[in-house]
Amino acid sequence: MSASSHSYPMSGGDDKHSYIHNSSYQKAGIDGVQEKARQYIFKNLDLLTMNPNLSTFTIADFGCSIGPNTFHAVQNIIDIVKLKESQENSLVPLEFQVYFNDLPNNDFNTLFRTQPPSSKQDYFSVGVPGSFYGRVLPRNSIHLGNTSFTTHWLSKVPEEVCDKKSPAWNKNYIHCNDLIEEVTEAYKVQFTKDMRVFLKARAEELVAGGLMIALGQCLPDGVAMYETWPGIVKDTIGDCLQDMATLGLTTEEKIEMFNLPVYFPQSSELKGAIEQNKSFTIEMMEIVSHPLEAMQLSNNFVTSMYRAILSTVIEEHFGDSVVDELFRRFAKKLSKHPIDFEKCKKQMVYHIVLKRK
Amino acid sequence: MSASSHSYPMSGGDDKHSYIHNSSYQKAGIDGVQEKARQYIFKNLDLLTMNPNLSTFTIADFGCSIGPNTFHAVQNIIDIVKLKESQENSLVPLEFQVYFNDLPNNDFNTLFRTQPPSSKQDYFSVGVPGSFYGRVLPRNSIHLGNTSFTTHWLSKVPEEVCDKKSPAWNKNYIHCNDLIEEVTEAYKVQFTKDMRVFLKARAEELVAGGLMIALGQCLPDGVAMYETWPGIVKDTIGDCLQDMATLGLTTEEKIEMFNLPVYFPQSSELKGAIEQNKSFTIEMMEIVSHPLEAMQLSNNFVTSMYRAILSTVIEEHFGDSVVDELFRRFAKKLSKHPIDFEKCKKQMVYHIVLKRK
Repeated sequence: MSASSHSYPMSGGDDKHSYIHNSSYQKAGIDGVQEKARQYIFKNLDLLTMNPNLSTFTIADFGCSIGPNTFHAVQNIIDIVKLKESQENSLVPLEFQVYFNDLPNNDFNTLFRTQPPSSKQDYFSVGVPGSFYGRVLPRNSIHLGNTSFTTHWLSKVPEEVCDKKSPAWNKNYIHCNDLIEEVTEAYKVQFTKDMRVFLKARAEELVAGGLMIALGQCLPDGVAMYETWPGIVKDTIGDCLQDMATLGLTTEEKIEMFNLPVYFPQSSELKGAIEQNKSFTIEMMEIVSHPLEAMQLSNNFVTSMYRAILSTVIEEHFGDSVVDELFRRFAKKLSKHPIDFEKCKKQMVYHIVLKRK
Repeated sequence: MSASSHSYPMSGGDDKHSYIHNSSYQKAGIDGVQEKARQYIFKNLDLLTMNPNLSTFTIADFGCSIGPNTFHAVQNIIDIVKLKESQENSLVPLEFQVYFNDLPNNDFNTLFRTQPPSSKQDYFSVGVPGSFYGRVLPRNSIHLGNTSFTTHWLSKVPEEVCDKKSPAWNKNYIHCNDLIEEVTEAYKVQFTKDMRVFLKARAEELVAGGLMIALGQCLPDGVAMYETWPGIVKDTIGDCLQDMATLGLTTEEKIEMFNLPVYFPQSSELKGAIEQNKSFTIEMMEIVSHPLEAMQLSNNFVTSMYRAILSTVIEEHFGDSVVDELFRRFAKKLSKHPIDFEKCKKQMVYHIVLKRK
């Protein structure tokens, strides 16, 4: 029922290139803020007092991918709701139902297969196939929504950045690196629109008093993408594609038609996009450093991480023969010209708690 | 959260051996009774009058496999509930949410990928991984449950039928063909137990006034499995395995340890198993002929159908190298000794509507 859009899930399965084995960076981001989220939920979730007959507490993780981060995030939430419940006098112990949402071509088989064993799982687990840029669940059906590192994936690439005749043409860059003002503007418009759709859908799905927790990446105001290490990584991947075009392993035209549907907003822009929705109050918003931000990440770590994230979208455009060669070249380029993580401008992690009015 | 049990889903994917392309026999069974189910729902579903503020109508298909039958069955239900709704004065149009349940190793990726296009799908779709021999959904969360051709799959093979020292040892037969009384008794005990667990779980999941529709196979009282064509098919598959053991392609020991977790109850036995649950009233129960029962099914049809149903369970026990050869031999044996469908004793289709008290 959700609007269809192009979709590029994280690498499925559980081999060495899979997202399952290459998502520790995202996990560190979740761990970094979880204590605050726990405290907030404990203090402010008033559903249990509002409705002492509440029998099932429903949680949705939007853009869950294939674990283990999603299991980790929802277990955290359940533990704190249980703790809160234990201190109140509820008649019947709550049951928990968790809706794991991602695009229909997400690897749900692996998600289900790698769930915590049933003896340790204290919730009913459900998979929800559909783009979160649209409704995926019924009205008033969710008590707590969560999304971790997802909203930088846009519903689509803005058309004009692939249009040679447009001033917003992104030349042979493969992402919004902020080097061309019109390109940034086009991505920004798409991001704002997507955020509006995302929040409108969640406002309909959440019950009154329900919480929406969002965690993701943004840039400090004034920082350009090309100055950050994730920006440098994507520009380097673009350079490798150029090298491959020179050797005839892909073509210049293909590169010019390729852009990642990814955008990191600056922090004030993110705040503006969230404030535009009047169905939520912003209960908490913090912009913090990623716990691994100051660390010198190894080339191997960076290569594996970006391969798990980007191989699906690259494969779809360039064909699957390109991926191995591309990341081999990328690893080589990194070892010749290592990223100086300390010198890069910092990207940030945003952590927001919204409450449904 | 559901009890774990061995599980043998229908063949996944969408190649020529998949369940998707080999489930027309089951579809014919569904088509055969759907008009009665529609009429019953239309006349008797009183949820809409009971709760004029009902905003989401929830449907669960237990043991949905991978379509297209499940989509067909739920669309039927939705259409009739909508028709009923249109004749009443509801304040807000209902939204529909459909829970597609099957074992965690069911091919949910294919299920989600082959859903009706979002433009034609008027419900929110959700996958529920877990054995229906246990709870898979929260208390009081479902308005209408459905299950089609599933309850003959037991949660497990009764242990004694693989135990050489037991009087219930099934020798080298591979299923309960009713030739050994103690074997039938062991299967019957397991079936009764499984049915009790199935109905107890559904009673907890359904709201008061909710309906449970069950469709499946049974035998007329006094008919033995070996006298029916599905019984003959399985005995013939067993014969082929014997031939392969003689040639060293598998072993006698492996065959002796293999039994299908499948049981067709006789109709009075089925009725007894259902009546034991006191949370439901039996609103309707009919035992009818399968629409294709009197037809002479082609050898190809039978081979493809049973390959889609049994290859997973056979592969798990005998290894995947066995399946091709086994069904090649089976097809050959059928062409030498065709089943005389007219002469076989009839299996039946049961169609039951239960109402949650």
